[in-house]
Amino acid sequence: MRITAIHETAAPIKSTIANAYIDFSKMTCSLVAVVTDVVRDGEPVVGFGFSSNGRYAAGAIMRERMIPRLLEAPADSLLDPTSGLLDPFRCWDAMMTNEKPGGHGERSVAVGTIDMAIWDALAKIEGVPLWRLLADRYRDGRADPDVWVYAAGGYYQPDKGIPGLVEEVKSYQGMGYVDFKLKIGGATLAQDLDRIEAVIGVAGQASHVAVDANGRFDLETAVAYAKAFEPYGLLWYEEAGDPLDYALQAALAEHYAPPMATGENLFSTIDATNLIRYAGLRPDRDWLQFDCALSYGLCEYIRTLEMLEQHGWSTRRVVPHGGHQMSLNIAAGLHLGGNESYPGIFQPFGGFADGIRIENGRVALPEVPGIGIETKAGLYALCQELAAG
Amino acid sequence: MRITAIHETAAPIKSTIANAYIDFSKMTCSLVAVVTDVVRDGEPVVGFGFSSNGRYAAGAIMRERMIPRLLEAPADSLLDPTSGLLDPFRCWDAMMTNEKPGGHGERSVAVGTIDMAIWDALAKIEGVPLWRLLADRYRDGRADPDVWVYAAGGYYQPDKGIPGLVEEVKSYQGMGYVDFKLKIGGATLAQDLDRIEAVIGVAGQASHVAVDANGRFDLETAVAYAKAFEPYGLLWYEEAGDPLDYALQAALAEHYAPPMATGENLFSTIDATNLIRYAGLRPDRDWLQFDCALSYGLCEYIRTLEMLEQHGWSTRRVVPHGGHQMSLNIAAGLHLGGNESYPGIFQPFGGFADGIRIENGRVALPEVPGIGIETKAGLYALCQELAAG
Repeated sequence: MRITAIHETAAPIKSTIANAYIDFSKMTCSLVAVVTDVVRDGEPVVGFGFSSNGRYAAGAIMRERMIPRLLEAPADSLLDPTSGLLDPFRCWDAMMTNEKPGGHGERSVAVGTIDMAIWDALAKIEGVPLWRLLADRYRDGRADPDVWVYAAGGYYQPDKGIPGLVEEVKSYQGMGYVDFKLKIGGATLAQDLDRIEAVIGVAGQASHVAVDANGRFDLETAVAYAKAFEPYGLLWYEEAGDPLDYALQAALAEHYAPPMATGENLFSTIDATNLIRYAGLRPDRDWLQFDCALSYGLCEYIRTLEMLEQHGWSTRRVVPHGGHQMSLNIAAGLHLGGNESYPGIFQPFGGFADGIRIENGRVALPEVPGIGIETKAGLYALCQELAAG
Repeated sequence: MRITAIHETAAPIKSTIANAYIDFSKMTCSLVAVVTDVVRDGEPVVGFGFSSNGRYAAGAIMRERMIPRLLEAPADSLLDPTSGLLDPFRCWDAMMTNEKPGGHGERSVAVGTIDMAIWDALAKIEGVPLWRLLADRYRDGRADPDVWVYAAGGYYQPDKGIPGLVEEVKSYQGMGYVDFKLKIGGATLAQDLDRIEAVIGVAGQASHVAVDANGRFDLETAVAYAKAFEPYGLLWYEEAGDPLDYALQAALAEHYAPPMATGENLFSTIDATNLIRYAGLRPDRDWLQFDCALSYGLCEYIRTLEMLEQHGWSTRRVVPHGGHQMSLNIAAGLHLGGNESYPGIFQPFGGFADGIRIENGRVALPEVPGIGIETKAGLYALCQELAAG
């Protein structure tokens, strides 16, 4: 078999929301279609991939570097010699030819998006959901039947006060979510405490409420926030400082006993390794949030999970950023701790199968080949348009 | 004053050379022209910037994100309120609006290239060489009259044996260089030792010869090489392992007493900080090689130098990667230890003023406003073409 074409485009993933660092009004997202010469149901199998929110589309890097390398590689060099099907790891190596080590940003989005489409194509060719393919390959065939998800929201929006925040969280509750996350650091500490308490009021208890500073704080501010909300016993305290400031994270751990979380802005296995080595994170309570779509894809994610296990971390401590179907497949198939969800925003990329409801804070996965993009009508329509060329 | 236009293009910086990680046959480089409404000698002042070798052109990121942000910003918001001239730091902040922390690669090239053009424009408007502007602002007016440079070469090339390597180093000697660097890790250890000894033979002593593994080695191989050439007493042992593997670097330091060098593949101040915190580098002997053109430009470089001084490092331990005029200006103006040079390759971007010869391993800087691009005919021709639109 061979890859006959790779299409990519950038689509807006814009929103009126803002976190403590950026607003999302100009945010874009990459969409990729990998077309193969394998026919299923009378049509060539096409794998789809898309990047995640928070980083911009990376189409130029794909067009100039990764796509030509895949299309110019001898077809056999991209295949598993046993199965004769695409080997995502060989494809990954081809994409990274003539790339120097280090500098893990943007390029990691380009590779991650194409990698997703390759895994989608492979699972479709094998005729199985990706979560099952992963469980069969790496977890003795045992996939989780459903995945814990939490509703990430509570962004700062113009003219949205506490009542608006309460309404938002109640709406997530109505959808079946039990756990919620809100942004902090875009207002004063006192205002943020009011927001946190309002969300706890809806959620019922603080252990259902996480907070996210989006890397905004210096150590002094991070510790001031920590001391202010340590008594609550929150679900977690996310990305207090710069995502690469491991020393800040380690210092914060000395001031804050409840769970911390970070990792969404680390885009490679070696960056994740440094986090584990230096950031003082605690394998018995803290959370890791690497997002495969932004960080070289599932091939690299598998390497990161192996690294974690070598360092004594359970894969159950990993709850990926991004709220998308790819991470949901990885969570179910590779036994992660859960997955983020952004109900109603970052559409049509965010969210899960249209027909599957959240129940008691958990979501099941569809029984369709691949990632399940075909079960999400808005996203599938974009994908079909792209695949048509 | 205001910026009236920003042009960018990608140019090949290709070569038949290869290091241990990549070949350079498809390498590209970004070139930028920042056009202002300030008139000097009857013409609008145009600042030029270019990226450095080893990473690819980043034009799409500039066109989609940094250039619109600069052109859409209120003109006054980019100016120093005292002088009324461009403030590179305000321009930098404008370019990084709506960019999340972390992920320092590619984007760092886009920002770094435009930042270079802004500093070039500012120095031209002030009518001084950039090295003098920097010395006046940051070093009490004392610039270094010339800068130590070493000849980086010794790449693996098809059909180039030891005689070719010896000829190459002799040619650098003929140009006035005293110190030389060759690649290792693309051959066997025994072959590389032969190559090293051949270069020492030309250089006269090992303290004039550095070696560069380009991040290729695991710890075991890095240590094997270290033990093999520790007796020589080389100038330095560069980038033994993955540039982000601080633990490997620290472990190597326990096996290797002579100088080590690294940093060309770290692209932000926070990454540089982690290197200083965790990599076991020794301020009395080791070398730091951050390249401003690839790492968010001179604004970020100044922050990196401040960070180094806070950690007890002299700026004299910094010898930038890249072999270009921007780093040479920084070296002279901000008192670095020296600068890389690639005689004859990476043209027309690499190298220094056409009319100034290397003497006893040192090079002086031209007395022209800006970075000095106008003193380098091949590069200036490209720049003029770009500025014409």
